[in-house]
Amino acid sequence: MSNGTLKIRRIAIDTYHENVAYMSRDCEIYRAEGFQALSKITISTNEHRVLAVLNVVDDISIVEPDELGLSEQAYKQLNVDEGTQVSVDYAEPPKSMDAVRRKINGERLSQQDFDNIAFDIAETRYSKMEMAAFLVATGQNNLDRDELLFLTRSMLKSGERMNWHESLVADKHCIGGIPGNRTSMLVVPIVAAHGMLIPKTSSRAITSPSGTADTMEMLAKVNLPPKHLHTIVRKERGCLAWGGTAKLAPVDDMLISVERPLGIDSQGQMVASILSKKLAAGSTHLLIDIPVGPTAKVRHMREALALRKLFEFVGDQLDVHLEVVITDGRQPIGRGIGPALEARDIMQVLENDPEAPPDLRQKALQLAGRVLEFDPDVRGGQGYAIARDILDSGRALAKMNAIIEAQGAKQIDLQPGDLCHEIRAESTGFITNIDNFQMAKIARIAGAPMDKKAGVNLLKKLGEPVVKGEPVYRIYAEFPSDFKFAKNLAAQNRGYMIGSDEQILKSFVAF
Amino acid sequence: MSNGTLKIRRIAIDTYHENVAYMSRDCEIYRAEGFQALSKITISTNEHRVLAVLNVVDDISIVEPDELGLSEQAYKQLNVDEGTQVSVDYAEPPKSMDAVRRKINGERLSQQDFDNIAFDIAETRYSKMEMAAFLVATGQNNLDRDELLFLTRSMLKSGERMNWHESLVADKHCIGGIPGNRTSMLVVPIVAAHGMLIPKTSSRAITSPSGTADTMEMLAKVNLPPKHLHTIVRKERGCLAWGGTAKLAPVDDMLISVERPLGIDSQGQMVASILSKKLAAGSTHLLIDIPVGPTAKVRHMREALALRKLFEFVGDQLDVHLEVVITDGRQPIGRGIGPALEARDIMQVLENDPEAPPDLRQKALQLAGRVLEFDPDVRGGQGYAIARDILDSGRALAKMNAIIEAQGAKQIDLQPGDLCHEIRAESTGFITNIDNFQMAKIARIAGAPMDKKAGVNLLKKLGEPVVKGEPVYRIYAEFPSDFKFAKNLAAQNRGYMIGSDEQILKSFVAF
Repeated sequence: MSNGTLKIRRIAIDTYHENVAYMSRDCEIYRAEGFQALSKITISTNEHRVLAVLNVVDDISIVEPDELGLSEQAYKQLNVDEGTQVSVDYAEPPKSMDAVRRKINGERLSQQDFDNIAFDIAETRYSKMEMAAFLVATGQNNLDRDELLFLTRSMLKSGERMNWHESLVADKHCIGGIPGNRTSMLVVPIVAAHGMLIPKTSSRAITSPSGTADTMEMLAKVNLPPKHLHTIVRKERGCLAWGGTAKLAPVDDMLISVERPLGIDSQGQMVASILSKKLAAGSTHLLIDIPVGPTAKVRHMREALALRKLFEFVGDQLDVHLEVVITDGRQPIGRGIGPALEARDIMQVLENDPEAPPDLRQKALQLAGRVLEFDPDVRGGQGYAIARDILDSGRALAKMNAIIEAQGAKQIDLQPGDLCHEIRAESTGFITNIDNFQMAKIARIAGAPMDKKAGVNLLKKLGEPVVKGEPVYRIYAEFPSDFKFAKNLAAQNRGYMIGSDEQILKSFVAF
Repeated sequence: MSNGTLKIRRIAIDTYHENVAYMSRDCEIYRAEGFQALSKITISTNEHRVLAVLNVVDDISIVEPDELGLSEQAYKQLNVDEGTQVSVDYAEPPKSMDAVRRKINGERLSQQDFDNIAFDIAETRYSKMEMAAFLVATGQNNLDRDELLFLTRSMLKSGERMNWHESLVADKHCIGGIPGNRTSMLVVPIVAAHGMLIPKTSSRAITSPSGTADTMEMLAKVNLPPKHLHTIVRKERGCLAWGGTAKLAPVDDMLISVERPLGIDSQGQMVASILSKKLAAGSTHLLIDIPVGPTAKVRHMREALALRKLFEFVGDQLDVHLEVVITDGRQPIGRGIGPALEARDIMQVLENDPEAPPDLRQKALQLAGRVLEFDPDVRGGQGYAIARDILDSGRALAKMNAIIEAQGAKQIDLQPGDLCHEIRAESTGFITNIDNFQMAKIARIAGAPMDKKAGVNLLKKLGEPVVKGEPVYRIYAEFPSDFKFAKNLAAQNRGYMIGSDEQILKSFVAF
């Protein structure tokens, strides 16, 4: 209690992307309730400092009056031992919130404004409410192209930046929204087998049933320290790792943790998010995949074109060689949705298994072909044939196995979960529609990606004929409660439609 | 563990305006981490249901794997005993968030949209992030006058509405921002002594150093059940109670808990907030006070006039007799800032003490005069003289004492805190400026309103001459840590300026 300090106590509560501190209502030094109304406090030792939301506690088995409890997140960030004496102070609202308020008032912000905002967010000075205010104020058409460039630059500056010391570092990225769309796990081995550098870092799923990192984790370790990553990439020319170990554009992750639950991502924010992340990862040549379809993120061709222009504008200013492909986003890609089921599809394609989903193979070859054409020695239009050659010859599989070996192979088990429910056709006809969003939701509720073996396996795809009673898809789960929720959800909305062959949804995208 | 349910356990953690549930990471029925990423869960028994944010716990002394912990807020709201079996489900994002997203996209919302939003907020379906998104989307000039009317109506409908069964129910309300501005505690006894019904309910301070309810609490109980309130008002014609016991426009309180820390209140939101609250309290005749000054909420006369029109438009549509007065907001009113110090000022005015702050008396008489003129029997322009008569004759004091008695008198102790620090003039001249915002902040940091005796007492007001070394104001506190923070804050910015008499800030408002 000396000098007005409190003893740190670690509280085993995981408060998910928000620091929380716990103070006894009977704390003799500070007025817990007074602090609480002001919403945030600063906790400091001589060397460390962290901001947290304050919860007031009335149970001494959680915190004693002379202690300050910290949630796991806050404890890790403050990085001192339990029992360390800390002092507590009122946290001023972040200074850069003034700029957010100016933006709300319709002003145009400067590079310096965005730098200050990104810096304060990176320092965890923003609460989730404040981040939500920033996101709404800069959402939709509220940022012009230059402001979008400023924001991307600020987000890029907020973290570390990788340097691969080569003049051509390739990458590909899809804007998301299409379940099962795991083309990266095919593009990387094809491109790396060709000898081009493609150090792919991916995210885990946030609101989707699987991210590339989740699916790759079925086969190999993905949680690799940056140093180890460099060794693998130097040797194999490629990797498929989780991007979270290197601190790449951390502001992006923090904004995403607010944006996703709110469902308010705008085109501008998407461009800033993707480009800051990819440039931080050291890419020099970048292929962006924009799927278009009625249940995709981008629903109209005109919207896809506007988004393409934004990517091109910011990419050119930030000096990355960027190309955009607009692809067919009418339905999920492949059959599996969920880590194990998706990994099974991928391995079938690599192994040239006749059972392999043809649409996944086709799309991966298209994208790999475009990436290969970043190579000055590849003639325009020849990329696809080279990619197909690499895949058909087994060189892509050999490269994938080498990458798996280098990252740390796992005991491979791609069997789906034990609990299985079949959704059967209610009539005879053709599959005229598959709802990306509903399929992702069913797989998610069934347990993916936390339960690797949970998800959905599509047996019929768009345009295929079905006979009444034939299975259209299967739901897999491991936990009875998840299984029940997923079955209920599918009963409310099956996620597909059966009709006549003229009713089959046409693609907006020409091939 | 039967039937996939968990046992409720009350966790003595106060999570302040947000429900939090605590689930063990080892919970055998539900996947705690999967739920967490989706940000909200529904907790239900057969009869009750509550939404909460989920925290994952790794300490069985907090929650066991077969338990679900609830923070104080959530426990109170679910309203079942400890040990009750509950089931947990994914919480769908509130449906009305679609309308919020449409508003973000620039659409105009309908009465039905606002009704749905207000209903979902009242049902605690909105997280703080979602409320922040709504507030930013509807902030500034983003609502037209009709939408503002819709919003006010929806907020009004979200809670109970008082009915006083009289044709003239008077009220006054200041838009806030001026420390020490406790005129209600003078207007109510004057108006009630005249015989007019004025059942005043007020808020407690949220980000200010005192609310009317906090200051009144120095003298009497303010936490009165609605039934008791009616008895008092029938007998005394007035009251000065805390508005939180009746569920008046609860959506307003919830939005305020997000708006204040963000510092983003717009004119539209202010109008909706005040009018929904006052109409829910049953007012038929309402006087609105808009102080104008460089450190007031409203800084320019043109802004005050625009705000007046908004109040008039919505007020007329909602059928309340509404008048607006624009007042001098250059500096705090009276001397004291903080509950005890303000109550002392009030009692001095009521007692006709020659030490009473003249500006507080003057402003209270002006406002009371305007309220009295709501009485059809009072001739236009005569209100002020009647108010002065009631005050000078001691009838206002007698009425105040009767109201105090009826609400439940407290042991009155208006002595300020033991820790006292004087801020002395650094030069000789005139007080040319006093910063409302900084003075409020110093009083707040000194401990007000939690510490009733903490605050600031102004010894010199705008325009008064000072000699170098003379005390300008005093800071009072009870806790050494608060005292130190407040002294530091005053050292950084004293909150007033001394200059020549020509530099004295002029009022924008003519009297």
